[in-house]
Amino acid sequence: MAGKDVETFNINKRKDFSKWYNTIVRVAELVDDRYNLKGFYVFRPWSVITMELMYDIYERELQLTGHKPCYFPLLIPESSYRKEAEHVIGFMPELIFVTEVGKRKKLGQRYALRSTSETAFYQMYELWVRSWKDLPLKLYQRANVFRWETKATKPFIRTREFYWIEAHDVFASREEAEAQVREDLGMSKRVISGVFGIPFIHFKRPEWDKFPGAEYTYACDVVMPDGKVMQQPSTHLLGQKFSKPFNITFTDKDEVKRYGWQTCYGPAISRIYASLIAVHGDNNGLRLPFNLAPVQVIIIPIISKGSEKAVLKYCNDLKGELVKNGLRVVIDDGDKMPGSKYYYWEMKGVPVRFEVGVKEVKNKTVTVYRRDLRTKKVIKRSALKGIRKLGDEITSTLIRQADKEFKDCIVTVNDYSGLKKVIGDRRIARASYCSIGMNGFKCANKIKSDLTAEVRGVRIDVEERPWTKCVACGSKAESVVYIAREY
Amino acid sequence: MAGKDVETFNINKRKDFSKWYNTIVRVAELVDDRYNLKGFYVFRPWSVITMELMYDIYERELQLTGHKPCYFPLLIPESSYRKEAEHVIGFMPELIFVTEVGKRKKLGQRYALRSTSETAFYQMYELWVRSWKDLPLKLYQRANVFRWETKATKPFIRTREFYWIEAHDVFASREEAEAQVREDLGMSKRVISGVFGIPFIHFKRPEWDKFPGAEYTYACDVVMPDGKVMQQPSTHLLGQKFSKPFNITFTDKDEVKRYGWQTCYGPAISRIYASLIAVHGDNNGLRLPFNLAPVQVIIIPIISKGSEKAVLKYCNDLKGELVKNGLRVVIDDGDKMPGSKYYYWEMKGVPVRFEVGVKEVKNKTVTVYRRDLRTKKVIKRSALKGIRKLGDEITSTLIRQADKEFKDCIVTVNDYSGLKKVIGDRRIARASYCSIGMNGFKCANKIKSDLTAEVRGVRIDVEERPWTKCVACGSKAESVVYIAREY
Repeated sequence: MAGKDVETFNINKRKDFSKWYNTIVRVAELVDDRYNLKGFYVFRPWSVITMELMYDIYERELQLTGHKPCYFPLLIPESSYRKEAEHVIGFMPELIFVTEVGKRKKLGQRYALRSTSETAFYQMYELWVRSWKDLPLKLYQRANVFRWETKATKPFIRTREFYWIEAHDVFASREEAEAQVREDLGMSKRVISGVFGIPFIHFKRPEWDKFPGAEYTYACDVVMPDGKVMQQPSTHLLGQKFSKPFNITFTDKDEVKRYGWQTCYGPAISRIYASLIAVHGDNNGLRLPFNLAPVQVIIIPIISKGSEKAVLKYCNDLKGELVKNGLRVVIDDGDKMPGSKYYYWEMKGVPVRFEVGVKEVKNKTVTVYRRDLRTKKVIKRSALKGIRKLGDEITSTLIRQADKEFKDCIVTVNDYSGLKKVIGDRRIARASYCSIGMNGFKCANKIKSDLTAEVRGVRIDVEERPWTKCVACGSKAESVVYIAREY
Repeated sequence: MAGKDVETFNINKRKDFSKWYNTIVRVAELVDDRYNLKGFYVFRPWSVITMELMYDIYERELQLTGHKPCYFPLLIPESSYRKEAEHVIGFMPELIFVTEVGKRKKLGQRYALRSTSETAFYQMYELWVRSWKDLPLKLYQRANVFRWETKATKPFIRTREFYWIEAHDVFASREEAEAQVREDLGMSKRVISGVFGIPFIHFKRPEWDKFPGAEYTYACDVVMPDGKVMQQPSTHLLGQKFSKPFNITFTDKDEVKRYGWQTCYGPAISRIYASLIAVHGDNNGLRLPFNLAPVQVIIIPIISKGSEKAVLKYCNDLKGELVKNGLRVVIDDGDKMPGSKYYYWEMKGVPVRFEVGVKEVKNKTVTVYRRDLRTKKVIKRSALKGIRKLGDEITSTLIRQADKEFKDCIVTVNDYSGLKKVIGDRRIARASYCSIGMNGFKCANKIKSDLTAEVRGVRIDVEERPWTKCVACGSKAESVVYIAREY
């Protein structure tokens, strides 16, 4: 059956992740990197349909936690960016500026394309927040954001324009703001790990690695197949660091005027998508969770002489029944050989394949192939309503496999040579460490220059106590940290 | 009941539309115009929730007609814009340019924020279209777009950043492209008129008023309460005007290489939203179609001494039942007087209000107020499942009223003095006219300078034959046109 138009995808994801990734984003038609501006990519339907589903899930979750959607302008006056000193210093090198309109008309000042929207939102918050009755104020927007990255760009992982959600909240007290940080963490857990099936660790970042303008930063790290970690949603306790320069004040119940307490949260959908495909994919291509697949069931008619009409009718009936149940289904009736179609849709990550020939028509059955385990089974046509359950099973397999690989990746080390080995083996090291305050910055720099690895922070979901001296300097350890190479 | 915190909205929409509009967008919290960049607005949750619902409806319709979603870069190199001459001449004055990054690093050329994305999409279409098998190619994106308007901006109606969908299609033949134009027109009809309830006329635009770079342009005109028309989605037959400079070619079935035939379609969601609120609103504020209302049912508890617990429990039970049926429901248990709450939610356009006091609790009833007719009725609690049907009825009323007003607005005129009177009365004139080819441009200019009105084009849904000489120059009339002031 394997005619000359069979093209197989077969790259060892773990051994040669870079080749795997660069190839799959092209052949699965996720992205086109030939747009005529460096670092900007065209995101194609196969990735966009999934990202839109991810947006839906995330936005629903934000709304359930009391957030409301809004649209803020893309352009932010440079003068607004400059209101919080650490913030502008942190972001300035990456800002992209509008300076003129039409033929050559210069504008009065420069306007940045948002790299993040604190300085856009908070000038309005100054106007909207008056009384304790206006709080909490919880808004979010889905938006495109811009950072002129100087590191090499890579589709979904690091692009100069990307797609995210940013939530900006104001509270009457530090306690409520801290509770919001925990709520955000819960949301990351439910959505990214629970629904998308991507395991991660929640870290409190070291002092030297927090968001410019934040009191502290919490962030999720996922691990990619090459053992490097990638930061996913971060939540920042801004405290009053922005409410003071932006004058966000409210009259409290006791008639005293106070500054608001703020948090912000920024899940980057296009970046999470990178983790989604990297974590779940295998050597034969993508493997998409059932609820996120643009096509959930692909039906391949196997035509023999004289059977075309009956087989296609049967395929259409099957499709009709699944579509009625809300599934996304395609019949591939193109002129390639069935074997080619199998490989193609496997590479695209479609969770379920139906193979339908004369035998199936005669016996009122369907041959069902599942992408996760790569196994086949014949089912009765009357069992078609079980396909959604099969879909959930497939997603569960992906999650289970991902969790196991993630756990295997973390190795406890007791000394610097152990650390060296683990980093060299492309894993994540767990180690006792002097301090994630500025005192520990020197050790972090040593690790970075020796091993090109980073101190990611301390876990916040469990409390861990150091069991030995600092892995880098040998002085007393205050914390247990995780050290890894990063994207 | 009308305590001192009652604030009523009461502006005659028809007599003083400008005041009505400028006030409602502020007091209903649709938009904030105090952002520190002129012409850019902050869109607030009450408008954004509805616009997101409108996006959902429109995108579903596009997908049903075979379009797939994608994300193209916001930035378009000036050199790409310049590839089609009429296009760049038409858009240049409104383009907003990025020229530098970081502190003062100049870029090699200017990059426009997209004002429309033909020149971004079509450079990729050159690469993607190879064979007749690749056609039709039908993609769309939802996106923010940028035009540096020099006319006065107005929330939703004319803003320098706005929200739209753009669909870009390529076909193997002119016939298929023309069929697409008709499909787009059908889509506008189904969504804007059928679902959003906004009546409009479909015009073929005069030669002098088409999209820069199009063979011809079809567009919908809605009429605003002040009698001015506003352009809504337009569809352009681009023909081969872009496929030639962008080299979009395919090998046809007969092995001959041909240029593709193109169309584009651009419904501007934020602009359609302007029509939605203007057309359906009344002197007391917004009136939102049931399916587009951020809150569909508002429940107002009427508390008397000692009844608080029972009334609130009853309200919560009602809410629970409605939410279970997928409705968007809010209980307003704030500390204002019920009368104030009534006015407030009427002004916000919520279609259905429940009033719940001890009487309702005792009798197991609900007092139901409908926003469209401003009438009240007591229903049994057991009849709650009929609320969705009531919602549909409310939407039907809005549509019926809007259709009637629209029809009343169009007046047939036989001569220039009749035309003058109708335009002066703020209506749309229907008249015999010399030509919508370039021959008719002179008459259009005369009408514009005498009456500040525009020749909108000829209807395409019905064929109309001129019954007299041209209303402006008295020469032989080829067409029946509609003349109106425009936004």
